[in-house]
Amino acid sequence: MSKHKPANKSAPAAPPVEIYYLLLTCPNRPGIIARVASHIFECGFNIADTRQFDEEDTDRFFMRVEFNPVREGADIEAWKASFSVLADEYDMTWRVRAQSQLSKVLILVSKFDHCLADLLYRWRIGELPMEIVGVASNYPRETFPHLDFDGIPFHYLPVTRETKMEQEAQIWALVQQSHADLLVLARYMQILSDGLAAKLVGRCINIHHSFLPGFKGARPYHQAHARGVKVIGASAHYVTAELDEGPIIEQDVERISHHHRPDDLVSKGRDIERRVLARAVRYHVENRVVINGRKTIVFTE
Amino acid sequence: MSKHKPANKSAPAAPPVEIYYLLLTCPNRPGIIARVASHIFECGFNIADTRQFDEEDTDRFFMRVEFNPVREGADIEAWKASFSVLADEYDMTWRVRAQSQLSKVLILVSKFDHCLADLLYRWRIGELPMEIVGVASNYPRETFPHLDFDGIPFHYLPVTRETKMEQEAQIWALVQQSHADLLVLARYMQILSDGLAAKLVGRCINIHHSFLPGFKGARPYHQAHARGVKVIGASAHYVTAELDEGPIIEQDVERISHHHRPDDLVSKGRDIERRVLARAVRYHVENRVVINGRKTIVFTE
Amino acid sequence: MSKHKPANKSAPAAPPVEIYYLLLTCPNRPGIIARVASHIFECGFNIADTRQFDEEDTDRFFMRVEFNPVREGADIEAWKASFSVLADEYDMTWRVRAQSQLSKVLILVSKFDHCLADLLYRWRIGELPMEIVGVASNYPRETFPHLDFDGIPFHYLPVTRETKMEQEAQIWALVQQSHADLLVLARYMQILSDGLAAKLVGRCINIHHSFLPGFKGARPYHQAHARGVKVIGASAHYVTAELDEGPIIEQDVERISHHHRPDDLVSKGRDIERRVLARAVRYHVENRVVINGRKTIVFTE
Amino acid sequence: MSKHKPANKSAPAAPPVEIYYLLLTCPNRPGIIARVASHIFECGFNIADTRQFDEEDTDRFFMRVEFNPVREGADIEAWKASFSVLADEYDMTWRVRAQSQLSKVLILVSKFDHCLADLLYRWRIGELPMEIVGVASNYPRETFPHLDFDGIPFHYLPVTRETKMEQEAQIWALVQQSHADLLVLARYMQILSDGLAAKLVGRCINIHHSFLPGFKGARPYHQAHARGVKVIGASAHYVTAELDEGPIIEQDVERISHHHRPDDLVSKGRDIERRVLARAVRYHVENRVVINGRKTIVFTE
Repeated sequence: MSKHKPANKSAPAAPPVEIYYLLLTCPNRPGIIARVASHIFECGFNIADTRQFDEEDTDRFFMRVEFNPVREGADIEAWKASFSVLADEYDMTWRVRAQSQLSKVLILVSKFDHCLADLLYRWRIGELPMEIVGVASNYPRETFPHLDFDGIPFHYLPVTRETKMEQEAQIWALVQQSHADLLVLARYMQILSDGLAAKLVGRCINIHHSFLPGFKGARPYHQAHARGVKVIGASAHYVTAELDEGPIIEQDVERISHHHRPDDLVSKGRDIERRVLARAVRYHVENRVVINGRKTIVFTE
Repeated sequence: MSKHKPANKSAPAAPPVEIYYLLLTCPNRPGIIARVASHIFECGFNIADTRQFDEEDTDRFFMRVEFNPVREGADIEAWKASFSVLADEYDMTWRVRAQSQLSKVLILVSKFDHCLADLLYRWRIGELPMEIVGVASNYPRETFPHLDFDGIPFHYLPVTRETKMEQEAQIWALVQQSHADLLVLARYMQILSDGLAAKLVGRCINIHHSFLPGFKGARPYHQAHARGVKVIGASAHYVTAELDEGPIIEQDVERISHHHRPDDLVSKGRDIERRVLARAVRYHVENRVVINGRKTIVFTE
Repeated sequence: MSKHKPANKSAPAAPPVEIYYLLLTCPNRPGIIARVASHIFECGFNIADTRQFDEEDTDRFFMRVEFNPVREGADIEAWKASFSVLADEYDMTWRVRAQSQLSKVLILVSKFDHCLADLLYRWRIGELPMEIVGVASNYPRETFPHLDFDGIPFHYLPVTRETKMEQEAQIWALVQQSHADLLVLARYMQILSDGLAAKLVGRCINIHHSFLPGFKGARPYHQAHARGVKVIGASAHYVTAELDEGPIIEQDVERISHHHRPDDLVSKGRDIERRVLARAVRYHVENRVVINGRKTIVFTE
Repeated sequence: MSKHKPANKSAPAAPPVEIYYLLLTCPNRPGIIARVASHIFECGFNIADTRQFDEEDTDRFFMRVEFNPVREGADIEAWKASFSVLADEYDMTWRVRAQSQLSKVLILVSKFDHCLADLLYRWRIGELPMEIVGVASNYPRETFPHLDFDGIPFHYLPVTRETKMEQEAQIWALVQQSHADLLVLARYMQILSDGLAAKLVGRCINIHHSFLPGFKGARPYHQAHARGVKVIGASAHYVTAELDEGPIIEQDVERISHHHRPDDLVSKGRDIERRVLARAVRYHVENRVVINGRKTIVFTE
């Protein structure tokens, strides 16, 4: 797990050592690890952690590296410049982020606020290294009287079937104005249009309150109760145009019995949803997730 | 969990005290528990454990009672006779079984024997209070060279599409001749015909190697791999005419990652399957399961 | 699980039907269930749920009953009067509580507020049927700037080694003035004196941040890291004079690896602690827990 | 998880590609990954997987690499020769093993055979890539009438307090004669003497039937019952001279309740023990475990 001190929202002292997270994917061939590792070392950095994965079905290679400067004058911009040459040679898709350059996150929510409250709490105590650039809801601010937004802008974006297009345009404008690089649907009970979903590929995470692929669509706990399953779950996934079919980032479950009414499942589900969503968001903002077609590769600790 | 000593396959000394398992269901109305409890006590028995459940959707009442004789002359036949009058009054469906009267179980298997090997092991050490009256397979005895059937009759029942009717007639004949009251499909890779399924309602348990309702049908671990789920599972359910739609008795799961290939899921799945099936069989043979439409009520410890 | 609607903190409409929770224990002998069930029914009530347990080591009987009036004029005070005669006959210890008569809970906390924040959240949305009569801390109110106490009185009770006696007297005064019937130590980092512990027998719940009996005492996550365990946990228990030796109500765990530093364990631990404590508190306020010597009997759903 | 096909006990066709498992540890300093990766690549091999870990407390570096030949003439002996130079430079402790060079395992057991039966089953179906060179027991062969040892030599080594020294000498002779590189105590109910333990450092795995460090010593399930814990577990660890204090490789748990008698815990425990031991053995024989003082580093998939 992270060795770095948790990010602190209130103007932290600069960490003594910057850490960079590199994620890359390319067609598999021998020697990539050696090349990447050597390049990083030769540029004056040390590899603190690296994980890789060969996807056999597509013969693609995936890699995540945490590295930090160890030599006087090690410069990330110079590194990027020279690495891009190497990357071209191997036909890599890649991105690198400094740990201190926090992910900018916009949260969408409807009236159930357990995921929102949990994300805010974890962010506040430094468990989620991100900057929350806004909270938007189709419900007004008064819906959340007990939540302290702590200066985070709140946007009330009501929606009806007739105004959905306009409302989504507002969401999109918010994303752009706030430079959000992640949109989190924290029990946002509206289905994004294909158009908006398409603009947010790979940077919009939804929490679905069932153990996908079981019980897609509406009222999954009621579906689970009707089917008589003995375990329920929740799934955090990237949003795609196909409803509840996006690449799954994280799932978890809890055991239930015939005693549990749909309302009980909703209650148990709150616990599962909030921890599954928090983990998925953390994996994303720590640059641990790569989308691989309909699936994800998650380089956990 | 069971207070009784585990059943021992090799002619146990009669247990000092017989225990009876009563299961009943009827339309809900006040006072049933008091009536049943008083009746049992007045007939000279003591209630060792009782569980009940009010199904609100259908307004039905379900109850399980473990009881044992405490008064000189307490007689189960006399109890049954008088209880049936009470049962009629409340419109009950009920059954009672003495702990010493072991369930007779017929096991069907194809070539994967992990569930079979596990059931045999648990039965041998007394974890599963049942009598195994036979093992039948569409593969010959040589398929299982390392399993000690310990005198249990083995029946080789090969099957082709053309001979399926005849083979199922053989299965049915086996059930009748062996007086099996439970048929366990321990990774039996043939789908029972509707006709045979209909004859076995409530007494045929299948282990499906997925977390139902996800991944019904063939090759569920390959389906799970293709979908990129982060948790896999197995489900034990009663067989009905609808494939993989019968009432679920027990489910369990394990966490996986992108590293796991379909073969790895198959391997991990073996562990889940064998423990889920063993639990479901134990619940059934201890008279803990009542079918309630598409669902089950399982009175666990 | 509970069929009743969750209690609502803001003056709820009277529930259409009152539900009573009866807990009793007595020396075991035949016929108790029948007697209790019949008595409840004859007094005009219906049993919604009942659970019992025979403790073989001590030959004691434990029982929990949920019941509600079904006959015109069924009166709980009359029931209590007549039940106390029956209870004397069987030498019972018993208590009964109406669901609407919420448990009064006083919460103690030091500077880590994850359990406090979680209890407040669950209470607010109706998951924990209790009345919070106060929050007390050895840290000042400013320690929790983001928590909305929502009118709950906050008491700052600083403590030093020299003033511990006086501070505990203040705590005890608070318990008495607020008529608290449960004191929750929600990561309260002071050890209660034997004297105070003795006054709070059976009504003070602590969350210990280890999987007891492993890692008693201080800094359990650091102990766990030093020992190299692969799973960590948390334990909610009743406070007794012996440190971390009180009867355990609930425990849960999470898997860790060599990657996790003590700080990571602390972070993972927060999740375990808050859900373990919340469950234990719920079991207590729903009258589901009986202390049985060094152990508890918990009648879960 | 392993991409390789499971090892098959009956003379498998040579795998098309050999895979090597390298494990190393050394004082941490920048550039190790680059050097190791480059060396492997330059010798004509490809890295299929690599994991590493910086232990901050001791500032040591740990690394596991799976690699396979990709260039004509890549030779493991030549690789070893040149790698040992590099290893000396970095002050490394290291070992490398070919996947096809199966670990030789000697199993010790007393009368409870659930772990033994499980290891045999998993080995037989190819889940555990190892060669079982013998089974030894202080109980005679007739103790296991239903187990098919399938040609594995069985050694009856009775022991009394007086003959313990001689019996341990026999065990040690067995280890030497069979060239066993791992001794598995699969519920072997004798405590190894310090002397024998010292000879087997890092190559003797025991399964302890409790969640260490709780309940060390004898009858842990009875201890757990007496303490009233709500979760029980099992721990696989390397044997050291200190009883139940060796480095833990793997642990797992199951939930229990007040209903469970010590015998029930024993029964539930069997399931935990067998899966924990099987995982630990697999980690060891796949060269995934490094001992780090009192702890282990386990490079799981």
